[in-house]
Amino acid sequence: MGKNMMIAQSGGPTSVINASLAGAIRAAMNAPEIDRIYGSLHGLEGILKDRIISVSEAFADDEAFERLKHTPSMALGSCRFKLAKVPDENYELIARKLRELEIGYFFYIGGNDSMDTVDKLAAYFTASGMDIKCVGIPKTIDNDLVETDHTPGYGSAARFIAHSLREIYCDASVYDRNSVTIVEIMGRNAGWLTAASVLARNPQFNAPHLVYLPEIAFDREAFVEAIKELSQRQKVIVIAVSEGIKFASGEYVNVAPKSEHDSFGHAALSGSGRYLEEIIRKEFGFKTRSIEFSLLQRSAAHLASDVDVAEAFTCGEKAVAYALAGMNRVMVSMQRINNEPYTIEYVPMDVSRIANREKPIPREWITDNGTDLTQDYIDYALPLIGSEPLPEFFLFDKTNLIAR
Amino acid sequence: MGKNMMIAQSGGPTSVINASLAGAIRAAMNAPEIDRIYGSLHGLEGILKDRIISVSEAFADDEAFERLKHTPSMALGSCRFKLAKVPDENYELIARKLRELEIGYFFYIGGNDSMDTVDKLAAYFTASGMDIKCVGIPKTIDNDLVETDHTPGYGSAARFIAHSLREIYCDASVYDRNSVTIVEIMGRNAGWLTAASVLARNPQFNAPHLVYLPEIAFDREAFVEAIKELSQRQKVIVIAVSEGIKFASGEYVNVAPKSEHDSFGHAALSGSGRYLEEIIRKEFGFKTRSIEFSLLQRSAAHLASDVDVAEAFTCGEKAVAYALAGMNRVMVSMQRINNEPYTIEYVPMDVSRIANREKPIPREWITDNGTDLTQDYIDYALPLIGSEPLPEFFLFDKTNLIAR
Repeated sequence: MGKNMMIAQSGGPTSVINASLAGAIRAAMNAPEIDRIYGSLHGLEGILKDRIISVSEAFADDEAFERLKHTPSMALGSCRFKLAKVPDENYELIARKLRELEIGYFFYIGGNDSMDTVDKLAAYFTASGMDIKCVGIPKTIDNDLVETDHTPGYGSAARFIAHSLREIYCDASVYDRNSVTIVEIMGRNAGWLTAASVLARNPQFNAPHLVYLPEIAFDREAFVEAIKELSQRQKVIVIAVSEGIKFASGEYVNVAPKSEHDSFGHAALSGSGRYLEEIIRKEFGFKTRSIEFSLLQRSAAHLASDVDVAEAFTCGEKAVAYALAGMNRVMVSMQRINNEPYTIEYVPMDVSRIANREKPIPREWITDNGTDLTQDYIDYALPLIGSEPLPEFFLFDKTNLIAR
Repeated sequence: MGKNMMIAQSGGPTSVINASLAGAIRAAMNAPEIDRIYGSLHGLEGILKDRIISVSEAFADDEAFERLKHTPSMALGSCRFKLAKVPDENYELIARKLRELEIGYFFYIGGNDSMDTVDKLAAYFTASGMDIKCVGIPKTIDNDLVETDHTPGYGSAARFIAHSLREIYCDASVYDRNSVTIVEIMGRNAGWLTAASVLARNPQFNAPHLVYLPEIAFDREAFVEAIKELSQRQKVIVIAVSEGIKFASGEYVNVAPKSEHDSFGHAALSGSGRYLEEIIRKEFGFKTRSIEFSLLQRSAAHLASDVDVAEAFTCGEKAVAYALAGMNRVMVSMQRINNEPYTIEYVPMDVSRIANREKPIPREWITDNGTDLTQDYIDYALPLIGSEPLPEFFLFDKTNLIAR
């Protein structure tokens, strides 16, 4: 008789984290080495609080897997629980619960905080003489994990951003007057999501016209200058700005007054868009609107990238394969083998190399002036947002006025 | 030789106003009575400023029509230009330009302000002895036009709202803690769009749990009481609130400080969601987040209702048919003949009966406590959001914990 498996999800939602869950569950159901498949509700909290369900019963057929694959957010729930640095009673309790449940395989789907959890638990289990293979499955819309080409969740969020920006540009262009539309996009320290806004461009649409990333210090004067220059050439300006842009001092351009910090000590941000909006209103008097993609960018499953869904599912399958092959304390990492055709290879990666680190956009993928992305970024990101091209819209040639 | 036609778009964008444009252009291209088809850029402003294009050249094949049908926002641009009450030099100038261009048919796609324009121009042309058939084509996401069952644009915006709310509910439910998610939805004086949030519900999802409409005076105490009661039964609360909710005094619950009013004297609103957010944070200390659908609700063509697109197109065709049949000063109105199967009849309606009026949600379609919609509303609205059902998501039975 085989051992049992425990799987849980942690961190913030994405459109495809459930696809990874589906992949792991399906692989486990096909593995004779794995007996029972347990899901812990709300990450580690479910183990600590005895909130554990048996998941296989829900998958009588492939349709259930298909449905889970296309369900946004986290079917097992999430938590923001952080393990202490030095093993404490929570470690002991988790170990005891997993021992009671005869767990031989532990899978945690999450970002760099979650990989830290995998790393710590795996070390503790080993030190305690427990044979539990711990494997991390990557997910984050932020795309900021190191040691992997990209993360499941990013491609879908990026597609939502690029697609929606194209629609918003149509909307922003209707009036014959100077206007600035600012789209505030998630991303505390890495600008990957905001960068994806440039994927909206095609020969018809050149928006966004300016891109502000956390990687580049925000300079108010340069911003005003850029708007001034642009507004001499065109009436409609669309700006993509990360929620996490910072001044040269390192201070966030707008820390929310509520100073609500999550349990990892991250500041809850909001308002970089509103901040830019105020500058433009004050300096130029243009009609200005800032909008936030907010939760939709991470939960809009209807715009998920097919590539992302498939990769997330495969990451779940690979995690089970790694654990069954005896690997421990690793994360499923994706390495890009080729760009045309886009080809990814999955490899196990030492999870300690990933935990708690963040990957910013390489400086050389940001243009010299700091407000745009290079073709190298586009070549990198385009395959991730899916095999189906973004919609092409109808445009009249408005310069071809009738002769009078 | 026939007369020429002029068409223009006005007011705020919708996902399907271009479908009406496509319908009118295609009908006109098939009508031997109509010679040249002109589009005025940015509503009446194009006529006043000689910014007029010839449109038929852009439609070499049906594919161009299909593309225009699925392009959000306004391909001819828009304006917020309002004609004076008493004919002035703008009336004269418009009349002169239309005479020069030998216009026999004038079509204006817009909401109640635009129907006011149609009404005034038609009266002026008649008084000036000009034979120009003026026909209005309805559009507004707000669904607030009188004398029509609903307006093109509403169904698609409603679908976006219901669909996105289901995704947002998945996102809002991930943590095992009290939380309130507030979705602020467009609608100054009529709550039709906010009402559409209830279409998100199915046997799996009961969100939104509270709905706040401009039709019902907002009562802070009752709101706190409702949250208190709900929070005793459930951890996750989702609220849909109209941007235009008002206190019993008639004052908007949060008029934006910028006091930016558009040229029709409408206050630019924002912040009813933020206002509720502050109340909850203060009174309950729950994790609270307010989000705005903002421009996406009116420009997300990728979630357009197929029924809405088809109806908008037909409205454009009908307008041309009415004008060719000699009708003047009318708007294409939709009358519901049957609900199962959903059947609409198109009828010409005296435009003066529509201009400048607003249709609120009937009181009897709002529940007695004022925070929900009745089945009658659902029966009314459901056919409008399209023939394809909203996605069903995968949910584990989280109550079925394993025995310990």
